[in-house]
Amino acid sequence: MPDFTDNLRPSQPDGPTTLARERTGSNISPKELSHHLLSTDGFLERQARILPIVQREPLFSKEKQQNLSRPERFKLGLARAKLLRRLKEQHKWSHDEYKMAEYLVDDVSPYFLHLEMFITTIREQASEAQRAEWLPLIESWKIVGAYAQTELGHGSNVRGLELEARWDGNTKEFILHSPTLTASKWWNGSLGRIANHAIVVAQLLLPKDGSENEYASHGPHPFIVQVRDMKTHLPLSGVVVGDIGPKYGYITMDNAYMLFNHFRVNPNSGIYTKPEQPALVYGSLTYVRAQIVHHARLVLARAVTVAVRYTAIRRQFQDRDGDKCGPEMAVLDYPTVQIRILPLLATAFALHYTGQSMRAIYQSTREDVEQGDFRSLAHMHSMSSGLKSLCTMLAADGVETCRRAMGGHGFGGGSGLIQLNNDYLSKPTVEGDNWMITQQVAAYLIKKMTAAVDSLASPTSDKTDEIFKEFIRNRSNGPSPTGLDVLASDQDVVKSFELRATALTYDVYEQRVLKKKSWNSLLIQLHKLSKVTKFFESLSTDNSLSGSTKSIMWELFRLFAFYTMEHEAFEFFRCNAVTKSDLDGLPARIQELMSRIRPHAVNLVDSWMIPDYLLDSALGRYDGRVYEDLYNRAHRLNPLNKITFNPNYWEDEIVKGSGESGASILSKL
Amino acid sequence: MPDFTDNLRPSQPDGPTTLARERTGSNISPKELSHHLLSTDGFLERQARILPIVQREPLFSKEKQQNLSRPERFKLGLARAKLLRRLKEQHKWSHDEYKMAEYLVDDVSPYFLHLEMFITTIREQASEAQRAEWLPLIESWKIVGAYAQTELGHGSNVRGLELEARWDGNTKEFILHSPTLTASKWWNGSLGRIANHAIVVAQLLLPKDGSENEYASHGPHPFIVQVRDMKTHLPLSGVVVGDIGPKYGYITMDNAYMLFNHFRVNPNSGIYTKPEQPALVYGSLTYVRAQIVHHARLVLARAVTVAVRYTAIRRQFQDRDGDKCGPEMAVLDYPTVQIRILPLLATAFALHYTGQSMRAIYQSTREDVEQGDFRSLAHMHSMSSGLKSLCTMLAADGVETCRRAMGGHGFGGGSGLIQLNNDYLSKPTVEGDNWMITQQVAAYLIKKMTAAVDSLASPTSDKTDEIFKEFIRNRSNGPSPTGLDVLASDQDVVKSFELRATALTYDVYEQRVLKKKSWNSLLIQLHKLSKVTKFFESLSTDNSLSGSTKSIMWELFRLFAFYTMEHEAFEFFRCNAVTKSDLDGLPARIQELMSRIRPHAVNLVDSWMIPDYLLDSALGRYDGRVYEDLYNRAHRLNPLNKITFNPNYWEDEIVKGSGESGASILSKL
Repeated sequence: MPDFTDNLRPSQPDGPTTLARERTGSNISPKELSHHLLSTDGFLERQARILPIVQREPLFSKEKQQNLSRPERFKLGLARAKLLRRLKEQHKWSHDEYKMAEYLVDDVSPYFLHLEMFITTIREQASEAQRAEWLPLIESWKIVGAYAQTELGHGSNVRGLELEARWDGNTKEFILHSPTLTASKWWNGSLGRIANHAIVVAQLLLPKDGSENEYASHGPHPFIVQVRDMKTHLPLSGVVVGDIGPKYGYITMDNAYMLFNHFRVNPNSGIYTKPEQPALVYGSLTYVRAQIVHHARLVLARAVTVAVRYTAIRRQFQDRDGDKCGPEMAVLDYPTVQIRILPLLATAFALHYTGQSMRAIYQSTREDVEQGDFRSLAHMHSMSSGLKSLCTMLAADGVETCRRAMGGHGFGGGSGLIQLNNDYLSKPTVEGDNWMITQQVAAYLIKKMTAAVDSLASPTSDKTDEIFKEFIRNRSNGPSPTGLDVLASDQDVVKSFELRATALTYDVYEQRVLKKKSWNSLLIQLHKLSKVTKFFESLSTDNSLSGSTKSIMWELFRLFAFYTMEHEAFEFFRCNAVTKSDLDGLPARIQELMSRIRPHAVNLVDSWMIPDYLLDSALGRYDGRVYEDLYNRAHRLNPLNKITFNPNYWEDEIVKGSGESGASILSKL
Repeated sequence: MPDFTDNLRPSQPDGPTTLARERTGSNISPKELSHHLLSTDGFLERQARILPIVQREPLFSKEKQQNLSRPERFKLGLARAKLLRRLKEQHKWSHDEYKMAEYLVDDVSPYFLHLEMFITTIREQASEAQRAEWLPLIESWKIVGAYAQTELGHGSNVRGLELEARWDGNTKEFILHSPTLTASKWWNGSLGRIANHAIVVAQLLLPKDGSENEYASHGPHPFIVQVRDMKTHLPLSGVVVGDIGPKYGYITMDNAYMLFNHFRVNPNSGIYTKPEQPALVYGSLTYVRAQIVHHARLVLARAVTVAVRYTAIRRQFQDRDGDKCGPEMAVLDYPTVQIRILPLLATAFALHYTGQSMRAIYQSTREDVEQGDFRSLAHMHSMSSGLKSLCTMLAADGVETCRRAMGGHGFGGGSGLIQLNNDYLSKPTVEGDNWMITQQVAAYLIKKMTAAVDSLASPTSDKTDEIFKEFIRNRSNGPSPTGLDVLASDQDVVKSFELRATALTYDVYEQRVLKKKSWNSLLIQLHKLSKVTKFFESLSTDNSLSGSTKSIMWELFRLFAFYTMEHEAFEFFRCNAVTKSDLDGLPARIQELMSRIRPHAVNLVDSWMIPDYLLDSALGRYDGRVYEDLYNRAHRLNPLNKITFNPNYWEDEIVKGSGESGASILSKL
């Protein structure tokens, strides 16, 4: 309905004017930088090709989805997931193209576990005969499967699972049974409402030799089990399965609970798969973690894109020391805003190089393993655990820091960060809790340090071994100033981080191995080990960036390093990795770096090339029409404004003229 | 529908068994401690009295509310708010009793601004004649009002508001007009769908002396304006008003946008109120901040209650150094879990004493002001700003830390933290952005330091002045070890915090006043000033706690102090507030404190007496029936499980047998 607000414009200078000025005021080329960041595996080209296809589907419109209830939102998510699969056929998309479409639509697919765990597990762990039988059905989605491992009472400790699979020698069947409530499967994605099959992990109980009634446990084993009828889609008798209910995020995912009552799995309805290669099981978890590490940069880049563009446009107060004429200051010109956003901008790049290196390590290790060489597995596993923990923490916390830096409007739906935040908050605890899996890093490092101490005279085996040995030799010469000049040399910055990590490792080694302190009392110290220096190496070896872009990337590297250093100043100081006077100089240096990066901030976030459709953010849109978009969402798209309410408390009626009381709302569910 | 899962129990030891053991294993009396914390203003007694009344109303059941859409949830919120007001009449509740009921129901009321800002502003700022006309209508809720100050383009900088109120001398009317889109009122609670009146803040434009066409701006002034028709509840002509749409939280609040098109306010439909006492305007903002400071403890206590109870019950892995028989370890026995939860438990108590002292300062200042003595206003304003920033940050971050410490189940709806988190995330940016308002603290402290320097020889005027002067004197004697022994003396801990705050203030004073550095370049340093030591004073002067409770409170004080100290170790070290060897000793000391506090953790959270109804948490319930409750929510209460879906991607149908396609969902809105 037209009204007088249709002709109103925001006050000047408006968003488009401001962003145009920002973009011409920097000599960084987003095109060049985006090519450097995102072209290696065809990502950019793929995004450009798939985007218009998904964007023209009305079902993929995000305009009103925040207003839906959980059941409605789940229906929408399922409808979208089906359409995506049909589009894949229609356009003959590769798996990567299909994943790109899914990424842009930005709903967690209810088929996610079918694709990511069910198919892969059967492909990699089933026998050839099993594969021949199952894969055609699975790949055509004739059957939809999930992966049911975690239980109500047990997550990380897989050995503690309670579901039993007892072998009945008479009928040649396995009997699945949940002896307790805590044995219920729990959190298993795609299984709550959608899947009709699942890989079910249960304690394998086999009769003891020569006995019919005594059973011995052989630990957790996977079984393929049909759990719903193929016609009615109702649970089979003896199976209780459903969706666990609302969560922080993942609204379109049907995480399941599932229990079995003496449920018989026979060769017609399911099979037992003996894991042939434990290393591969290990590998599939590592694969998921490596994916998470690789994805973190795009999550943080998305939040930083919104925060940089909006705070460049948003103005508040005149400069206290200025002449108080002219427009108010852009919020991004305040050091208190810069200190929250610009280090995160730098972090997004740090995450990028980390993700790249994680991917490279994963691929080379996989090749080794396929050749039968398992030596690099432990290193990769430790890397993927440490980086999963670090990267998801940086990204999850970074999204929230960006939101708060945007003040009031950051709390609104126009921020575009709500679903991103809600979904991403799962990452610090999922696929190995961040605090828990860093222990795996620590155990690995203690082992490396012990080896270094024991073989001090032998040649070094790798880079870590070399650094450890040098540290041990210097240590026995007594404490001495390191002579590092972190404010002047980027190389020394890296050495300082290395020194700190090594000193911490040695500390923990000393307490655990030499002083025999209990493992649990060391866990806190251990958590602090994992850190990144890939940023430096990547910049040092890169040949693709031009002079001005390269030099701003070096500034971002320094900002990331100094910001981290300042936050853990005492640790760096304690192990002699930075001098006190250098630490005293950090705040001024950080401020100086920020003022050099600031003019390029908009072009730097542009380089991530995150489409408006994915951002779904009034505050972060490319053209800067922040206020027009916020107003459009409020005035034209908000369904609540179609309802006229009855504000009189003494009347039970809620919607004016409906006569309907408030009590009816709850009964609708 | 009964099924085999009805008879299943969780594995042993179950929650009730575990919590019973925790409760008898500690000699802390929750009854004594809760009395100490919450009985002074009758809070506990009131909670006990109001709880059963609200709990028996079906409309206040929280069982399914997470599944509702925004429009449905808003309707429910309005229905509840009406019922609360009717219950107030029925039970002749006082304002405090009514607020207690609202607190327990835990919905942000769509009438919130009517009660908290509309009534108060008119009561305190209107003339006697205006009060006589308006208050009866307002207090009976015959008219419902809101407070419309913030605009789309301006929040913190009130002087920058764009809405105009131009005086028309011919008709004796004010003409309200929004010249731009950014002049739209925005965020104004209770106004989007509910209020029919609002206090509207606009730039007052009066004709220049002797001119009819030239106007001069007299800055922002408040007007009472009717905006909706009293019969139809539709916006009056010339007013565009609505709800701004979905947000992170506050789902039951109708935050508004509102624009005016040459809208005439005459004495029949509205009035202009000249603010008589600017100090009172100042006071009402301070009041809101003081309320937020006072409330923060209950928010954090709620999250910590859930986290402590759940992690005491949750078991995972056997002790690596133990005999590997017996049950798995309680998660709360891991130092990596303790280090996240126990310092927050200590923080809840620190927030309590801070809140108490804030309230006391507010009350005594208010009494002063009513006597015409405005001298303590600046101190109170600075306190309320600094503490609002600190306390909301600690509470908001603390809720998320608790959630992550609970692993996977923390991400589920059964955590009871989702709505708490979503609502509370508004607090760091609302009512004065945390980063911005700490500048007010800084400005105040710089002024105090300047005064101390200038009057070094004069007698000290207050405690801060005394500390500042002592610092200045010691400083001119050259740097010297402070001789503080923080690990041995609680008094020295406080002195160490004082010294650090003073040194930081002096630093900033030196740069701003002596070296004339620009304000903006100092803002980052300034943010670090505000901190708390009320905990110490309260424990030192308290006579109500018995020996064992008192001594555990001292341990909590130390944990809070040392944890803070460790996190800002380098700052403490830099200004000589703690020695390096003491800082080196902190981790061991913190671990030792945690092991002493751990056995009392459950009784300590019990002392906050947060009812299960308010917690609405499977993980945190008093009786420990965590898994039974999670299962009940999933299996019996989740409406998604009433729907059987069609999982075949090649079929457009979403709900099995309905024939309805996915596209219909979006069109429903």
